[in-house]
Amino acid sequence: MPLVLYDLAGADEEARFSPYCWRIKMALRHKGLAWREVPWRFTDKDVIVFSGGKTVPVLVDGTRSLNDSWAIARYLDERYPEPSLFGGPLGEAHALFIRLWSESTLHPLILRLILPDLYARLHPKDLDYFRSSREARFGKRLEDIASDPSTALPAFRAALAPVRSVVRSQPYLGGTRPSFADYIVFGALQWARVMSPLELLEPGDAVHEWRARLLDEHDGYAARAPICQPRLDPSAR
Amino acid sequence: MPLVLYDLAGADEEARFSPYCWRIKMALRHKGLAWREVPWRFTDKDVIVFSGGKTVPVLVDGTRSLNDSWAIARYLDERYPEPSLFGGPLGEAHALFIRLWSESTLHPLILRLILPDLYARLHPKDLDYFRSSREARFGKRLEDIASDPSTALPAFRAALAPVRSVVRSQPYLGGTRPSFADYIVFGALQWARVMSPLELLEPGDAVHEWRARLLDEHDGYAARAPICQPRLDPSAR
Repeated sequence: MPLVLYDLAGADEEARFSPYCWRIKMALRHKGLAWREVPWRFTDKDVIVFSGGKTVPVLVDGTRSLNDSWAIARYLDERYPEPSLFGGPLGEAHALFIRLWSESTLHPLILRLILPDLYARLHPKDLDYFRSSREARFGKRLEDIASDPSTALPAFRAALAPVRSVVRSQPYLGGTRPSFADYIVFGALQWARVMSPLELLEPGDAVHEWRARLLDEHDGYAARAPICQPRLDPSAR
Repeated sequence: MPLVLYDLAGADEEARFSPYCWRIKMALRHKGLAWREVPWRFTDKDVIVFSGGKTVPVLVDGTRSLNDSWAIARYLDERYPEPSLFGGPLGEAHALFIRLWSESTLHPLILRLILPDLYARLHPKDLDYFRSSREARFGKRLEDIASDPSTALPAFRAALAPVRSVVRSQPYLGGTRPSFADYIVFGALQWARVMSPLELLEPGDAVHEWRARLLDEHDGYAARAPICQPRLDPSAR
């Protein structure tokens, strides 16, 4: 029985943009596993109620279902050990730091940079949910969450300093080969790449080169990811 | 033949404040190794010329000498494998991220917070060297590098967010036991603790509790570290 992954889709069903789902798709490719994808939207809560959660990724492996990207990665490394995503307990413990750094530092900066583009590429049925949940999280109107790229883009690139330093001295955060830490940071960049024409990285930046290597990994899997087109009706914004 | 460590000292010879040396002292305790310490000041370049470098830590193990904290930690994990500091190649690769994050994020914030206290606790022979090297690094006068703690202290505590998130879900950055990643961040805090009365961490903060655990580790080794008193002659500033 193949693995099944519930994967967040935009207005285009083929455009998959969740940074958390990207981690897992890269991890599945890392393991050489095949899977079937079920496109999912934010408001399809009833579809994944079996998982015990309200968000994707949800991975189903036979009779097991898991609904958190960290739990899924740990499960995959235990159930399908080679090649490893974490390289043992210390590799996993340290990857947790990189995950929490990425989520606390990069994710808010990216969200605020791509927010208008992202909103224009959501499925219409998700718009109200997305607006109300993000406005509650930030405590302000969606239009006031978005940042000005002229200042926010340099700030984002500066925030990548530790990634830049690492990939100047070794090819991947995981060393000579990508690890789950790479897929975590890469997933955040894929989120932007699928949903916004804004170029977050500058050519010549070591982080840009590192991302290019990851786009090429696993037979160019992530490079082929469909890019989402904006909905035609601007009044739906 | 015991190991020998060249260790940066302040005005008080017993006050040892280098964040890079602290990493190594904790790593040596981690391995259960004994060592002899040679107090060293910034301007004692000739004393360590045999190492090929101009800074400490310098570790001498028989006929080997090493002069970079990362190289020393890697050497220790290879030569004295248990208990491990890195837990293998992926643990080490991920620890490099934590190191570069700490050095690019925490170190500048701490230096600017403790700078007047630190300067008042250096050995008189180091004052000119310290001033000229730091003024060259920052491109401004020493007096203009120092930050105002009323704004810089909250910014420093906010910058610790990823450490805080990790140690809320596991005791150490290394998981259930400290790893070299813990010693890296802890070393930065010891630098401040030895050279400044400023309390960088608030009681009740999970990072404060994590540091307390590390102060207690290895039979309370770091908790016993002598604190440096300021020089009596304020005109020497």
